[in-house]
Amino acid sequence: MNYKRRVDKLIGLLQEKGLDAVILGDRANVRYFTGMRFNTASFSILFVSKNGDVVLLTAVLDYNRVKRNCWIKDIRKFPEDDPNYLNPLKELLYGRNIKRVGVEFSTVTVERENLIKEVTNAELVNIENDLLRLRMVKDMEEIEIIRAAAKIAEKAMIKAVESIREGVKEYEVSAIAQDVMMREGAEGLSFEPFVMSGENAWLPQRFSSDKELKKGELVLFDMGCVYRGYCSDITRTFSPGGLSDEQKHLFRVAYEAQQKAIEAVKPGVAAEDIDKAARDYITQKGYGKYFPHLTGHGLGLSIHEMPIVDLGSKILLEPGMIVTIEPGIYVEGLGAARVEDMVLVTDDGYELLTNAPRELV
Amino acid sequence: MNYKRRVDKLIGLLQEKGLDAVILGDRANVRYFTGMRFNTASFSILFVSKNGDVVLLTAVLDYNRVKRNCWIKDIRKFPEDDPNYLNPLKELLYGRNIKRVGVEFSTVTVERENLIKEVTNAELVNIENDLLRLRMVKDMEEIEIIRAAAKIAEKAMIKAVESIREGVKEYEVSAIAQDVMMREGAEGLSFEPFVMSGENAWLPQRFSSDKELKKGELVLFDMGCVYRGYCSDITRTFSPGGLSDEQKHLFRVAYEAQQKAIEAVKPGVAAEDIDKAARDYITQKGYGKYFPHLTGHGLGLSIHEMPIVDLGSKILLEPGMIVTIEPGIYVEGLGAARVEDMVLVTDDGYELLTNAPRELV
Repeated sequence: MNYKRRVDKLIGLLQEKGLDAVILGDRANVRYFTGMRFNTASFSILFVSKNGDVVLLTAVLDYNRVKRNCWIKDIRKFPEDDPNYLNPLKELLYGRNIKRVGVEFSTVTVERENLIKEVTNAELVNIENDLLRLRMVKDMEEIEIIRAAAKIAEKAMIKAVESIREGVKEYEVSAIAQDVMMREGAEGLSFEPFVMSGENAWLPQRFSSDKELKKGELVLFDMGCVYRGYCSDITRTFSPGGLSDEQKHLFRVAYEAQQKAIEAVKPGVAAEDIDKAARDYITQKGYGKYFPHLTGHGLGLSIHEMPIVDLGSKILLEPGMIVTIEPGIYVEGLGAARVEDMVLVTDDGYELLTNAPRELV
Repeated sequence: MNYKRRVDKLIGLLQEKGLDAVILGDRANVRYFTGMRFNTASFSILFVSKNGDVVLLTAVLDYNRVKRNCWIKDIRKFPEDDPNYLNPLKELLYGRNIKRVGVEFSTVTVERENLIKEVTNAELVNIENDLLRLRMVKDMEEIEIIRAAAKIAEKAMIKAVESIREGVKEYEVSAIAQDVMMREGAEGLSFEPFVMSGENAWLPQRFSSDKELKKGELVLFDMGCVYRGYCSDITRTFSPGGLSDEQKHLFRVAYEAQQKAIEAVKPGVAAEDIDKAARDYITQKGYGKYFPHLTGHGLGLSIHEMPIVDLGSKILLEPGMIVTIEPGIYVEGLGAARVEDMVLVTDDGYELLTNAPRELV
């Protein structure tokens, strides 16, 4: 990856927005510009000024490794488990003439804000959407990594679905998939996976419990991994058998809605129109009020990125964007169904990055 | 668990500190007072006023389940993937006379701060240490859960260590442990586990890579799980064989330092004196400058809690506190060693919660 070129783009953004510097803490952004992997329990801070100063602050215990491996020359360390751990950031900012500084409002804590203001009295400007926009279209190398992440999740889903039978617990199904992904070299999970069966699915519960799967239940499994920093995300709906025609119909509508949305994917189409393709179909089939969420979302270094595929999302699709398509239907007393795949926008349409069987088993 | 009693204590704290309300977002705090588990990709906000109003804000998709399962009567929902998702918090605060509000400074983002100030103009007061202090001494039920979390991690460590041989990759060892923990019903990992071998250990690297284990290397594995919300944490050092006497000595000193610290654990002793027991021993053996971190930390709903067992930590141990003891030595060109166990402070001393074999295999 050409991290230096990414930082050059960032500096262009600074100039464009009249910012003197940015202070980034979101781990996806830090990784995008530095290439450095950090333990999820650790963190780091990237400082970039409009003049081109680039400084990475890391925890003491990460310092040696980062110093050795990172393209950035100016690496500094902060102590962990210390109330004054942010002092090195203070020192970095001290004496600089910073009037407007870009940060991620959903990541910067009051603690960090107070420190920045104490030293610089700068105005904080939220640039997280600008950063998400920088990361929105993936380059060839990113696409190859995400493709690999998707393949690992696909393999895990296939293995997990093979284990489905009455009496198996939700968390056991989830454990099988996680094991496949970790043995395949995933860095971790892209989010806490969840197997939700019967009532847990229509609530929905959004974590895997010790409930046993039963015949006559629809079971939904949503999961993914992080591979070389990039996320995958896939959902399948299955059952240990004994489904009613009504349940099968519910599944069929969710699945067909997903297909309608996928077929609508091509460059130049607005993300909201992809959502509309799924939503209109579900509404037409009478389940409109049982579809309470978005149709999909971009993903990359973060599990939720631009473009969001939802009502009101005006972003036009471009080649190199990668989104999930995952309309879902949740009916109390009956069940829930959702089929989710990762879709790459290509020059003339789309390519499915996940292809595990989609039919109810 | 008596969540209501915990909230009553919190209201006492509000009155004591002259706060009109608290707005909590840290997931450990929310779980402590509500008992609710949320997917780690989801979040919720707990509002408690000094008059005893208790309101839990959850994502739309978590609402039905929380409404059904939570002891709190006033549950409200916010939309996900919506720039105005915090509006329900605004509505909740609107018209209340809030002059001072308690929050967690390391959790509250600028986004949330701006919203609170827009509606209330309140002064934000950092109460995270007060909350950590409330959670510091564990009750009987918490101790039983943490004991179970520790047993799961212990079992996983034993299985992982059995897999050690030349040529196995770091992440493969880690995957084995994770699989055991997930099959045993863990909710997830208490942090990203890391197997670090040879050079990766003394850097240290703090994640599991695809490096193969080699003879003549010390290998360090630090990991743990979350079980019913509570964390476990254990480290062992091992090797595929071929260690020099110097490496064995390094291990011996780290292990003995840990034993010295553990033996010092009893009620009334300051946490810094536990640290001192390990640090003095390591220094006396000539490795003082190779021990760059704390001796241990409390743990519970979070992986790092009070008391911190480090230089300058004046907190006196009390029965019901649970801490890790994990002094480590990292010598460039030689290797790293650390043995970590979870220790419960009892009425007259300590009890080890993790007991997997500690010797180099």
